[in-house]
Amino acid sequence: MDEFGFIAEYLSCLAGPEGLDLKDDAAVWKPPAGFDAVISMDTLVEGVHFPQDKFDAQIAQKLIAVNVSDIIAKGADPLGYFLSLSLPKKTDLEALKDFCSGLDAAQYDYEVKLWGGDTTRTDGPLTMSVTMIGTVPTGKAVLRTGAKIGDFVCVTGNIGGSYLGLKTLLKQIDTEVYPTKFWVNKYHMPRPAFEFRAGVRTYANAAIDISDGLLADAEHLARASGVCIDINLPAIPLSTISTAWVSAQPDQQVARLELATGGDDYQVLMCVSEAQIPALKKQAALRKINLAVIGKVISGAGVTCRGSDGEVIPVTEPGYRHF
Amino acid sequence: MDEFGFIAEYLSCLAGPEGLDLKDDAAVWKPPAGFDAVISMDTLVEGVHFPQDKFDAQIAQKLIAVNVSDIIAKGADPLGYFLSLSLPKKTDLEALKDFCSGLDAAQYDYEVKLWGGDTTRTDGPLTMSVTMIGTVPTGKAVLRTGAKIGDFVCVTGNIGGSYLGLKTLLKQIDTEVYPTKFWVNKYHMPRPAFEFRAGVRTYANAAIDISDGLLADAEHLARASGVCIDINLPAIPLSTISTAWVSAQPDQQVARLELATGGDDYQVLMCVSEAQIPALKKQAALRKINLAVIGKVISGAGVTCRGSDGEVIPVTEPGYRHF
Repeated sequence: MDEFGFIAEYLSCLAGPEGLDLKDDAAVWKPPAGFDAVISMDTLVEGVHFPQDKFDAQIAQKLIAVNVSDIIAKGADPLGYFLSLSLPKKTDLEALKDFCSGLDAAQYDYEVKLWGGDTTRTDGPLTMSVTMIGTVPTGKAVLRTGAKIGDFVCVTGNIGGSYLGLKTLLKQIDTEVYPTKFWVNKYHMPRPAFEFRAGVRTYANAAIDISDGLLADAEHLARASGVCIDINLPAIPLSTISTAWVSAQPDQQVARLELATGGDDYQVLMCVSEAQIPALKKQAALRKINLAVIGKVISGAGVTCRGSDGEVIPVTEPGYRHF
Repeated sequence: MDEFGFIAEYLSCLAGPEGLDLKDDAAVWKPPAGFDAVISMDTLVEGVHFPQDKFDAQIAQKLIAVNVSDIIAKGADPLGYFLSLSLPKKTDLEALKDFCSGLDAAQYDYEVKLWGGDTTRTDGPLTMSVTMIGTVPTGKAVLRTGAKIGDFVCVTGNIGGSYLGLKTLLKQIDTEVYPTKFWVNKYHMPRPAFEFRAGVRTYANAAIDISDGLLADAEHLARASGVCIDINLPAIPLSTISTAWVSAQPDQQVARLELATGGDDYQVLMCVSEAQIPALKKQAALRKINLAVIGKVISGAGVTCRGSDGEVIPVTEPGYRHF
């Protein structure tokens, strides 16, 4: 099968009308009046961002999820995406079919359609790049720069599960002791707080999605806003089984810190005025989104992280270092 | 230097305001009222689309040019782009600086700015993906589907120079006989008919950019429009030195066919009503764009190609086969 056959057989059925049935080299989109476009691009490389030979429906879902995560952290609604697939020659057709079924599932979950892209061959690892396009009412995009001193720092969902999934895959966790499949699923198929995107744009002064690690991303936001983010480590929400893992570690504070810097969570970290917190919590509860207050915006720079006794914990590596 | 240092030092200066100084994970763009967005994505893989170790200013210019080419073939004005760079570990800083200077030059040539992207590491070949965004007055995008029977088929620029550049690099042409640098430059730095994008949207019923090969891309357009495109091979415009190369080949018709199927031209192939041809030619002349009528849209399917005696030439391989 050549590129055109692949597109006709597996990708055309995923296309939205903007994608012109993938029969053109470009998409044509009429941006709705009264909206800004919010656009982001994320790339996953085999062996760097996901395990080798993991070309399946799950990785397709992760690819779409990590890009949706960027869009909803701006308070925007994702609409469509462009996919660049660089495939090794050994890629088999069954894997390709499975991958496309994962795209289909993610499109349903996040209400997006394929608008275009490019398919190429590579002599190296599988490389996938997505450009995601969304809309937000004009002027309402939530940026990293808007945090105000006194804001409460909130986070959606639970943190650290994906990192424990990676540790499981790296054989650093005893699969006989813990129900590790839960974590591994979090790692392979993170689920951003899609249902809460309107909540982000309504209540947040600043927001960022957590991909590098909660503390690292909090630092990015703090730097962009020119403030300090003061994090209360024990307040960072964990699932029941992640809490059990923490409890079993020799130093629980070190264990919590590991989860707060592990990354790949794809939850939203938001800075919200104190007065908005009750309404924010109510909206989150209505949508069954876990919402925790984990810190405060103070004057200063960077991130401080406090333990259960209120003392500042030194953090040498707040998250994943790129390059 | 880590990813954030690289962005701050080399990429931030290339960013447009939509890119939020590359300090956010997304761009925010207010699409202008009365315009459609036209978006395309193209990927270049080292060793597949460009020679190994060719990471320099020229490849940056080619990367932007091939994406601009898609946009202007729709009659749209390019505005901004997202860049995904997957860099091998061996990439040196000097090459990276040179690459960024090529982006800068291309941004000036095509009036575009960097809006965002992603930088990752890879164990494989250098892989670069661009998503280009442009605008066109609402409803005026020129698609592949609009060709009408009776339309004249026109092409901008000259064809085949880039292919002869590739042949030079593959040591298939005697560099002592021909001034091959001209062709090699065409291959490394194709120059789409940027100045003619308004001409495309004003006069063309259908258009496509020539990347796979003139005959292959004509066939894509013919299929999308449900017509046959009848090409007059001797009318395909060649530069003086490409004409000299053709003259020196044992079979000139075979040589012309080679240039018409070589690809990488990044010129525009357009279908234009006969009545519009004088105005089209005048506008092209005003912009110093070479414009040639090379065929006609007739009923039927696919592409027919005729030689100097008017006889149909069988074409087995109309262009680059993907995958």
